[in-house]
Amino acid sequence: MSDKRIRFDHQKLTDFSIKALEKLGIPREDATITARMLVACDLRGVESHGVAHLNMFYGRRIKLGVINLKPKPRIVSEAPSTAVMDGDNGLGFVVGYHAMNEAIKRAENTGAGFVAVRNSTHFGAAAYYAMMALEHDMIGFSMTNNVPIVVAPGSSKPALSTNPLAVAVPTGKKPPFVLDMATSVVAGGKLEIARRTNQPIPEGWVVDGQGKPVTDVTKRVWGEGGLLPLGGTPSHGAYKGFGLALVVDILSGILSGSTISTLAKVDPKAIGNYSDHFFGALRISSFVPVEQFKKTMDNAIAALEALPTVPGVTRVSVPGGYEDAMVKECRANGIPLEPAVIEDLKKLAQELGIEFDMA
Amino acid sequence: MSDKRIRFDHQKLTDFSIKALEKLGIPREDATITARMLVACDLRGVESHGVAHLNMFYGRRIKLGVINLKPKPRIVSEAPSTAVMDGDNGLGFVVGYHAMNEAIKRAENTGAGFVAVRNSTHFGAAAYYAMMALEHDMIGFSMTNNVPIVVAPGSSKPALSTNPLAVAVPTGKKPPFVLDMATSVVAGGKLEIARRTNQPIPEGWVVDGQGKPVTDVTKRVWGEGGLLPLGGTPSHGAYKGFGLALVVDILSGILSGSTISTLAKVDPKAIGNYSDHFFGALRISSFVPVEQFKKTMDNAIAALEALPTVPGVTRVSVPGGYEDAMVKECRANGIPLEPAVIEDLKKLAQELGIEFDMA
Repeated sequence: MSDKRIRFDHQKLTDFSIKALEKLGIPREDATITARMLVACDLRGVESHGVAHLNMFYGRRIKLGVINLKPKPRIVSEAPSTAVMDGDNGLGFVVGYHAMNEAIKRAENTGAGFVAVRNSTHFGAAAYYAMMALEHDMIGFSMTNNVPIVVAPGSSKPALSTNPLAVAVPTGKKPPFVLDMATSVVAGGKLEIARRTNQPIPEGWVVDGQGKPVTDVTKRVWGEGGLLPLGGTPSHGAYKGFGLALVVDILSGILSGSTISTLAKVDPKAIGNYSDHFFGALRISSFVPVEQFKKTMDNAIAALEALPTVPGVTRVSVPGGYEDAMVKECRANGIPLEPAVIEDLKKLAQELGIEFDMA
Repeated sequence: MSDKRIRFDHQKLTDFSIKALEKLGIPREDATITARMLVACDLRGVESHGVAHLNMFYGRRIKLGVINLKPKPRIVSEAPSTAVMDGDNGLGFVVGYHAMNEAIKRAENTGAGFVAVRNSTHFGAAAYYAMMALEHDMIGFSMTNNVPIVVAPGSSKPALSTNPLAVAVPTGKKPPFVLDMATSVVAGGKLEIARRTNQPIPEGWVVDGQGKPVTDVTKRVWGEGGLLPLGGTPSHGAYKGFGLALVVDILSGILSGSTISTLAKVDPKAIGNYSDHFFGALRISSFVPVEQFKKTMDNAIAALEALPTVPGVTRVSVPGGYEDAMVKECRANGIPLEPAVIEDLKKLAQELGIEFDMA
C-alpha cells in the first residue's frame, strides 16, 4: 500500500470488470459472477485478490487460451448431502459459485451439504464462497489447492500450495465471523508485495533448498525451498500447518477424484490454472434456533473484544471485523487502487477497445 | 519420557482400567469404552492422554462427584445429516463415542453426518473419535473446547482452550492419515512435562500478562498470560491459530446450544469437567469409488515421503505414520509407563481394593 492510491467507485469497477471479461470471451452471466467476486475482495481490503489480478492473472491466462471460456460445470456423483462437480476447466470463480450453491441446496434439505470440485482453475479468495452461506443462516466452508510453493517440514522442495481455507459464521448485530487463511505461515501475496517493494521478509516465512531462512525474496531460487507451513518450525507446530494443508488437499483433490498438488501435472506456462476445491454448508436451524445461535455469537464476540490487552494493543480483533469495517468505508469513499494496478487496467481497456471511464 | 519406564501388556492395562472404572461407579459398558480409548492413546505413543490420566484426571473428578456416572446422552434436535446431543454431564469418552456413532450413521444415509454435543466433560484425545470413521470408509472429524488456557493475540488473559481438532482419512496400504492437533502452538501436555521435569520451554509457546515470553513455566502466574495460538506472533500467523480455535469453539460450543469457552462457567474445583464437542463423518463412496480414493491416498503419501529433505532430516513424516508404527511396536513389546504413573495406578488399585497384577 502507498499513499499514491486513487479511489474508484466499486460499482464502476464492477461494470468495467464485467465489460473486460466479456470482451475476453466470458459470457455475461459468468463475467458478472467473476467481477463481483474480484471487487468484493477490494471492498474487504483484500487487495491481493481483487481487480489487481484481473489482467495480470486471469486475463493473462484467458489470453493464453488455457481456460475454457464457456464451461459447463456438471455434477458427476451425488448423495443427499454430497456431490462431486467437474469444473470443465472453467474460471474458478464461476465453478466455485455453482458448487457452493449446490452445497447450500443440500444443507437446506438435510442440514449439511458438501461438494468436492475437480478440474477447475484459480478461484480467487476462499472467503467469498464461505460467505455465500451467511444469508441462508448457514455456516460456510471453502478451501482449495493450487500450485506447490510450500515445503513440508524438513523438506527442501515445494510440495503443497498455500492451501487456504475459509469459514464464515452468521452473527446478529456483530460483523459476521469470517476466517480466511492460508495454511502456510503467510499467503503468497505477502511475498509478491515484498518483491514489488524490495523489502526484506521476516525470518520464519521462507526457507531455501538447505532449509536455511531466506529474508531476501528477490534472491530466492524458485523451485528450491519455499514458504513454511503455519507454525514455521517443528518446535512451534509446523506439522500442524502441514497437516491442515494436507486436509485441504485431500478434501479438494482426492475426494473430488483429482489428486494432491504434489502430484498434479501443472502446465508451467499457465500456473494457477490447476485447482480443485471443497465447499461446505451447515444449516444452523437443524442444530439450534437461529436467533439463539446469533445472540450467542454476538455475546462471544463482545466478550473477546472486551478481553484485557497487553501494552500497545487497544483491542482484540475477531476474524472478519476489520474486513467488514473496510466494506463500509470503501462503499462510502471508493476502493483505493495502486498506480501500477490502474495502469494495468488502462492497458487492458485499450487492448480490448473498451473505456476505463471512472469519472 | 525416561528410560526408567516399564512395559505393560495393553490388554492387561485395558482390563485393569475397566475394573478400576467399574469400582469408581461407571457401568461396565461405559468403563469398557473409556478404558479402550485411554489404552489406545498409550498404544499410539500419546502418553499425555493415556492411562496416566486414569486416576489423576478422570478418577479424581469422579471421586469429587462432579461427573454423572450413569449418564443418558440423548439427541435433542436432528435433521437427516445433523444432530445435537446433550451429554448429560457424563464422561466425555462415553458421550463422544455415542455422538460419533450418530455422525457415522447419518453419513451412511446421506453422505455426511455432523453432531454437536453440549453438557459433556473432557473426552481425552480427539483422534480416537475421528478414527472411528476409518473402518466405515469415511473421513472422520472431531474437535472439542475445554477450559481457557490460551490467550487471544494481543491479550493477557486466557480466553480459549487449546481447542484441538482431529481429522482421520482412510488409506489402502499406507497407515491412515491422522492429524490430531491443538490449535495452540503446543498442547497443554507439553507444559505439564516441562513442569514435571523442570525444563525450560522455548520462547514462543507461552506469554505472561504483559505479553512477554515465558520460558520458565514453574514461575508462571496462572490466570495471567497463557499459551499462544498456533502461529505464535502476529507476523507469523497467530490470528490463524486463534481463528481456528474459535471455529472449534463455535462448532462445539455455540452450534450445540452451549457457548464458547471464554464465557463458560467452569467449576474451579473440577477443571476439565466443562466440555462441548463436535463430530463429523463424510462417506467416501458418496463422492468417489473407495478403492480409487485409497489408492490415490497411498500414492500421495508415498510422494510426500519421497520428497528431498534438508540436511539432518531423513524423511518427511505424514501425520499418523509415527503413531501407527508405535501401535505395532507397543502391541508386540508392551506399553511403556513412567514409574510415577505406575505408582499412581498402584495407589488407585489399593484405594479401590482391586489388584494391579500385570505379571
